[in-house]
Amino acid sequence: MLPMPIIECIPNVSEGRRPEVVEAIAAAIRAVPGVRLLDHSSDASHNRSVFTMAGDAAAIKAAVLAIYDRAVAAIDLRSHTGEHPRLGAVDVVPFVPIEGVTMAECVALAKDVAQEVASRFGVPVYFYEEASANPARKNLEDIRRGEFEGLAAKMASPGWAPDAGPAAPHASAGASVIGARMPLIAYNINLDTDRLDVAKKIAAAIRHSSGGFRYVKAAGFKLDDRGIVQVSMNLTNYEKTPIFRVFDLVKREAARYGVSVLESEIVGLVPAAALRQSVEYYLQLEGFSGNQVLENKLRQRPGE
Amino acid sequence: MLPMPIIECIPNVSEGRRPEVVEAIAAAIRAVPGVRLLDHSSDASHNRSVFTMAGDAAAIKAAVLAIYDRAVAAIDLRSHTGEHPRLGAVDVVPFVPIEGVTMAECVALAKDVAQEVASRFGVPVYFYEEASANPARKNLEDIRRGEFEGLAAKMASPGWAPDAGPAAPHASAGASVIGARMPLIAYNINLDTDRLDVAKKIAAAIRHSSGGFRYVKAAGFKLDDRGIVQVSMNLTNYEKTPIFRVFDLVKREAARYGVSVLESEIVGLVPAAALRQSVEYYLQLEGFSGNQVLENKLRQRPGE
Repeated sequence: MLPMPIIECIPNVSEGRRPEVVEAIAAAIRAVPGVRLLDHSSDASHNRSVFTMAGDAAAIKAAVLAIYDRAVAAIDLRSHTGEHPRLGAVDVVPFVPIEGVTMAECVALAKDVAQEVASRFGVPVYFYEEASANPARKNLEDIRRGEFEGLAAKMASPGWAPDAGPAAPHASAGASVIGARMPLIAYNINLDTDRLDVAKKIAAAIRHSSGGFRYVKAAGFKLDDRGIVQVSMNLTNYEKTPIFRVFDLVKREAARYGVSVLESEIVGLVPAAALRQSVEYYLQLEGFSGNQVLENKLRQRPGE
Repeated sequence: MLPMPIIECIPNVSEGRRPEVVEAIAAAIRAVPGVRLLDHSSDASHNRSVFTMAGDAAAIKAAVLAIYDRAVAAIDLRSHTGEHPRLGAVDVVPFVPIEGVTMAECVALAKDVAQEVASRFGVPVYFYEEASANPARKNLEDIRRGEFEGLAAKMASPGWAPDAGPAAPHASAGASVIGARMPLIAYNINLDTDRLDVAKKIAAAIRHSSGGFRYVKAAGFKLDDRGIVQVSMNLTNYEKTPIFRVFDLVKREAARYGVSVLESEIVGLVPAAALRQSVEYYLQLEGFSGNQVLENKLRQRPGE
């Protein structure tokens, strides 16, 4: 039995004000066999929509191309305004390995889709994150700096030729950033105190930017309605910096201030493997496999 | 979105020596749309086969009836021998709620299937476990005592009229025990010692029969090849006696003898909910739902 391969893809499209355009894109995704549109949300002030979908490589590729088909026809960056930085009509397309698929396969898919986008729509593409071999062009923020308005000049400057497609921006659709990354886990830990300084100190201790774990972004916040504080995190690679390690360290750092952990919370979706990892850690579970989860066995398809 | 309802069913059939009979039953299960045959194994000395399958209520019912169709025609208890106690050709049929289905629904399914078995095949049925309202007829061992050979006399004695079907055994197929129960989890904890007495004392401390947790069966064993000992357990209701509570208590009891836990292991299948429960405990996770597991969202079907 082979596990059913699942790739998650979260295209960000530069349209958050015209529901009919967003709905047409959602409908185009839903029409692709083998793809599930898990979620989509639009923000009018950002003038941007985020679609979350999943499927195997072939189905996801078809869905991304269907999005370009609608978005390139309907969105003109020359008249687009919004708070969120953006380079193109289809701004960012990350491919995320969830199950039965490697990061290398997601990188290959990203490059394959990029070539197709470039040749079919004439939109230049930059690779990012795991799909990028160039350290200066790995981070989305670095690639997007200057936005659509500065794109023509940027593309003509040294080191900024695109990875796929024409050497100049598409007139109305700009450029796209396509790549592969691990799933993000939005994870919060609430502390039994109203001392914001404690949350901020713990956030500083655990996050990468100030010396903590490599794949943790963190900040401290007040939860005014409850009179407590929160360490709010993004875990950007749960395989290398797992949830349980982050939780245990926050608990220990909090104890150093005489503060207890009230609870933690996962916001939105989490891959099953990230939960299994924590079960394996705390129960000292050896030789356990996702195939032993009854529900997973049901989802397997016959194979060799 | 509604979760896809999953019922597990593990029919035990009194045939473990004729592969062609076992294979015909397996083929009949596989032929039912919406049912997945997850596993089947036969034991020649027990002369018995165990099939593990899953699906929704209607599909599972169809599969059970298909099993009776083959088993009642092919198996004659009058000439059946084997080490394992048995009452009938299809000996035991438990229905187990896995996801999106309640125990009450599994009990209703057990009773519905029993009526159909009785009327279609003339096989009398005893309800057991959650499907039984009679404390003297809840345990499989109590119902099966006397076996097929003593069945006619037992059925005629006070208190042993069947719950469904004729008042006397089927001539060749005997009777069946049909019911509903929670999933069993086979769970072992290995200790860093060769002292069997420690494993036996811990097993006695945690198991129901000698004063421990209500839904734990446990025994201590030697693992001779590794020179260590094991506390081997069946967890019969993980909702009420969860894995993490058993693990933590074994660890604490072991420490009382100066012994460490080397590792634990789950043998065979485990429902995802039993793992989520342990993650929620150790990470103090509040407000978490199985719907947040990305893979679960993919398996949901559209609903209200």
